[in-house]
Amino acid sequence: MNIAGRPSAPLMSNPRADRVRDVAKLAGRPARLKTGRFVAEGPQAVREALLSHRADMQDGGTGVVLEVFATETCLERLPELAELASDVPLRLATDEVIGAMATTISPQGIVAVCRITDFSLEDVLASGARLVAVLCEVRDPGNAGTILRAADSAGADAVVLTTSSVDIHNPKAVRSTAGSLFHLPVITGADFDAVVSALHAHGITVLAADGYGNVDLDRLQDESAVRRLAPALSEEADDAAGADAPGLEPSQPRLENPSAWLFGNEAQGLADAQLAAADYRVAVPVYGRAESLNVGTAATVCLYASARAQNR
Amino acid sequence: MNIAGRPSAPLMSNPRADRVRDVAKLAGRPARLKTGRFVAEGPQAVREALLSHRADMQDGGTGVVLEVFATETCLERLPELAELASDVPLRLATDEVIGAMATTISPQGIVAVCRITDFSLEDVLASGARLVAVLCEVRDPGNAGTILRAADSAGADAVVLTTSSVDIHNPKAVRSTAGSLFHLPVITGADFDAVVSALHAHGITVLAADGYGNVDLDRLQDESAVRRLAPALSEEADDAAGADAPGLEPSQPRLENPSAWLFGNEAQGLADAQLAAADYRVAVPVYGRAESLNVGTAATVCLYASARAQNR
Repeated sequence: MNIAGRPSAPLMSNPRADRVRDVAKLAGRPARLKTGRFVAEGPQAVREALLSHRADMQDGGTGVVLEVFATETCLERLPELAELASDVPLRLATDEVIGAMATTISPQGIVAVCRITDFSLEDVLASGARLVAVLCEVRDPGNAGTILRAADSAGADAVVLTTSSVDIHNPKAVRSTAGSLFHLPVITGADFDAVVSALHAHGITVLAADGYGNVDLDRLQDESAVRRLAPALSEEADDAAGADAPGLEPSQPRLENPSAWLFGNEAQGLADAQLAAADYRVAVPVYGRAESLNVGTAATVCLYASARAQNR
Repeated sequence: MNIAGRPSAPLMSNPRADRVRDVAKLAGRPARLKTGRFVAEGPQAVREALLSHRADMQDGGTGVVLEVFATETCLERLPELAELASDVPLRLATDEVIGAMATTISPQGIVAVCRITDFSLEDVLASGARLVAVLCEVRDPGNAGTILRAADSAGADAVVLTTSSVDIHNPKAVRSTAGSLFHLPVITGADFDAVVSALHAHGITVLAADGYGNVDLDRLQDESAVRRLAPALSEEADDAAGADAPGLEPSQPRLENPSAWLFGNEAQGLADAQLAAADYRVAVPVYGRAESLNVGTAATVCLYASARAQNR
């Protein structure tokens, strides 16, 4: 097959070839650290990687995709992928080769080798970030993926993973971000104290998502809604400084202000030192019998509450 | 080991014993349908199953847990599980036996065989349900688990799965509900049309969660917030019938009213016929670059929006 009019390269058919092994090795952290590369598996992730690559190239960047490997069947079924890959090396390979490169049981015939982009938190903050998600020792790739997707949907400006969090470039984590990894700056291996200092230096309120928090997220949302929808009432309440109007007292953080949310470890939550470093400890209410919220659910509710208050 | 003062039964040590195979078979749908049983794996799920069992027994029910199998190490580490299991058959087994019964790579030494409870939608609705989640052809066990957890946290009265949805009692789905399966009535194998008729017969508004919906969830939340926090303004707006006060026009559904949310298939969303059966098509806004919301994220935002408006 001649891909989108390009001169055809020989079909890769040896799953034990060095080149195939090199890609497979990227499933491991040492190879990722050494090469600065990771693998996106399957049509959805590869598509988002290629779209991001194209946008970055148009902005004068170097792009995120280094190489795409795909089966002929896959490209026939999804011709737009070959089209999108028009300015990156694209090699045809057998199902067996793609299978050997990927960790997924069913990579659906396509993988992309991508560059790990080093985003700087300082740059992101200097450019006026107003909503940031910070993952503090979130260990499960699925949870990290859920939070990253929620951050993307909520229009967050960046996601930060502290040093002890899961490696977001491991294949399972990449998969669970469902392409959102390519949509917003993701800062990895960040030192917690340095992150909080930088956030504060840029005037960003640091909110800890904490089941035991003394600030209720619903209350913050109500207060924000009143300021937005009934400003006169809100001013009255400000003047009366907490009279009899429930939910209208001026209290605590304003969700519409630039904010960073801290999300903690799935078993232990945020550590005491992390809670102490936050400006406020905010609880997402649990209305049912669930003992506590899954960190992915909590993050979704928190980030959407901020996005709404900020009119993003 | 003598478990919590009970006469000790011999340690189960043969992973090929019929009794072990019978439990392992429950990973498959035919065995679950035939026996009406399923397996909860790992301490978290077993603990929630036992708590639910105890509560049901105290209410005069038959309880949900039929039998627990655990390693000695597990019960030494988590003695409260043996305590909670005081009124159900509990058998000690080797790691190998527990491993053979479970589908998880690491069942952490404990599994429970549970009864599949047949809840009736009619009973749930007759008892005054005000918030219901309906999964329409949601196929991924992880997504179904996320929605069930979100429904539980939001205090929903029931979760309904239509016939083509994932079997919530398959091991992966059970695991991903993280115990919420035991917290609220879950109705499976429901016929879509019958569900919508029953909801309507009980005066419940049917809301389709639909990325292309013409009703904006943020708008509904704003209107609900104004009715709740500034009723005077809301009445003025009602009188003025949509004058210049943005967000204050009386429009469309009220989130505080009894509602059922329809969530669709992860790839196709809700089918046209399903959308047509709903009273309103409500879109969750996407603020970032995500093309559409993952159904788990959307369900979390929708169910929490209703819970908040209903003051649950």
